[in-house]
Amino acid sequence: MSLSNFLKPMHAAIEDELAASVAIINGSQYGELYSMMAYHLGWEGEGAGPEARGKRIRPLLVLLTAAAARADWRAALPAAAAVELIHNFSLIHDDIEDNSPLRRGRPTVWARWGIPQAINTGDAMFTLAHLAMLRLAESVTPFTAFEASRILQEACLQLTQGQYLDIAYERRDDLTLEAYWSMVGGKTAALLAACTHAGALSAQASPQDCAAYRQFGWLLGLAFQAQDDLLGIWGDSAITGKSAESDLLSGKKSLPVLHGLSHGGRFAERWAQGPVTADEVPELVGLLEQSGARTFTEARADELTRQSLQALALARPQGEAGEALKELALLLLQRQG
Amino acid sequence: MSLSNFLKPMHAAIEDELAASVAIINGSQYGELYSMMAYHLGWEGEGAGPEARGKRIRPLLVLLTAAAARADWRAALPAAAAVELIHNFSLIHDDIEDNSPLRRGRPTVWARWGIPQAINTGDAMFTLAHLAMLRLAESVTPFTAFEASRILQEACLQLTQGQYLDIAYERRDDLTLEAYWSMVGGKTAALLAACTHAGALSAQASPQDCAAYRQFGWLLGLAFQAQDDLLGIWGDSAITGKSAESDLLSGKKSLPVLHGLSHGGRFAERWAQGPVTADEVPELVGLLEQSGARTFTEARADELTRQSLQALALARPQGEAGEALKELALLLLQRQG
Repeated sequence: MSLSNFLKPMHAAIEDELAASVAIINGSQYGELYSMMAYHLGWEGEGAGPEARGKRIRPLLVLLTAAAARADWRAALPAAAAVELIHNFSLIHDDIEDNSPLRRGRPTVWARWGIPQAINTGDAMFTLAHLAMLRLAESVTPFTAFEASRILQEACLQLTQGQYLDIAYERRDDLTLEAYWSMVGGKTAALLAACTHAGALSAQASPQDCAAYRQFGWLLGLAFQAQDDLLGIWGDSAITGKSAESDLLSGKKSLPVLHGLSHGGRFAERWAQGPVTADEVPELVGLLEQSGARTFTEARADELTRQSLQALALARPQGEAGEALKELALLLLQRQG
Repeated sequence: MSLSNFLKPMHAAIEDELAASVAIINGSQYGELYSMMAYHLGWEGEGAGPEARGKRIRPLLVLLTAAAARADWRAALPAAAAVELIHNFSLIHDDIEDNSPLRRGRPTVWARWGIPQAINTGDAMFTLAHLAMLRLAESVTPFTAFEASRILQEACLQLTQGQYLDIAYERRDDLTLEAYWSMVGGKTAALLAACTHAGALSAQASPQDCAAYRQFGWLLGLAFQAQDDLLGIWGDSAITGKSAESDLLSGKKSLPVLHGLSHGGRFAERWAQGPVTADEVPELVGLLEQSGARTFTEARADELTRQSLQALALARPQGEAGEALKELALLLLQRQG
């Protein structure tokens, strides 16, 4: 249980670093701009607290990678804050783009303050993220800050490319598996790759180790998504269709669904007719299973998990932090160690 | 006429550098994402051409500053592309936030492709801007790229703070002069300050010269805004109220209007009653003039212009580029040299 030894001090340090990063917005005239950020980050307003903050997985990945690469993880805190702010900027904008009124049970920023302020608050958080990353110049070196900044910007470009595909395919029925992986790569894996890469850079790891850590983060993101897609249909709460959690109800174009559609037949026919109702879910789950979609998705998730852990092994993570990093990966992939 | 000697080669080089910066988006699956950017930048789609591109004032300021600080201006091209992309990212988002269907006579990105894609395209352009700036590592040094990147991010933060105030005060009638200058500083002056600062950094100018160039850009932005506010009410086409160009018709809280409101009386009474019609404009212009709003705004514009040119003189701009830089400033301020 190495991970549990790191969680408490790291979580506390992450919140402090995030607070310092956002506190750059000061002066009474910008009080509301600060409040919109503090609300979204789970610090202020109704429902504030750990539940509203999310798990801070991305900054944990940065810090554990830095520690596993033999650095004092505190030097990587600017990078940890940066990736979490990027994640949250993208959530603020995604919520507008997806027309989502709720996130983690609370009204979204646009639902509370309107679309114009929400767009602008996301932009401001985007900037604060990059300013945070540049503070690596003080905790490591200016050249590290420069390199990590480029890594983060490249991840942001992939993020927006993935989001472009997601929006574009919302009204289209021709999403290919190739486009699916581009979308997932951009929306999930790119930022996780930047987390482990920036963590390794903060530790001034060798180019080889940086590349291995980066590959680990990238594959972890893909494996996580495949696993998430699997649980979205065959997870305990999804399979009955009684909860609103089945991906079949939300119409999500996930990996099993794409597999099912590519095989035609009754599943594809029903899908083409429009939104699925809760009482249809068990039958459709059965059809997907018969077409081999479950086996296909499980095989991809297993393969990606294996590759991800292999990349981590290549990076030779050290000590208790190395163990904790592996533990975090398995936790994300909902596997036993 | 030093400026005219620089305009042609610089404009051509700016378009080339912008094209290279945006071409990072490639691959057939992202063709539409590229097209949204190319459309907004005036390269593609109906109405494409020089008229749709704007004057590229900001990149010209970068390049002329670099040349006036004794550098080959071509080394500053990554910074020139970066500031123009930041300007255009902010226009894409502003158009959504202001609900503007047209820009430079063409449908805005959100009006053509919808709000979700427009938000995301702005985000992608924001990222491309910072990736462009980091290319100063190749044309100058990595440390220059790091410093210029921080300068640009800080300007972006001020930009979003200014935009926050603009949106917040749209429905409020208590905009103070202090908040007005904060808003204008953020929305206009911050990016111009970053232009001249980044130009000087690209030329590896001394910290003192960088500070003087920065101050020149900042004051130029404030002077430009005061002058623009003046022409918005007393410009040839604005004063009759027959064109839609009078700031009184659009309800813009400009410097003369704020002055008029602070003095109470008939202008303030009429303003409080809601939108002004074209036939009321000449009378309201007269009321503003009687209250001293014109004299006040002219005095501020003159003072800021004088301070801006003084800051430029302190930077000791060299050679023909130095002359051209002064010429560009006077052109922006609509003054004779």
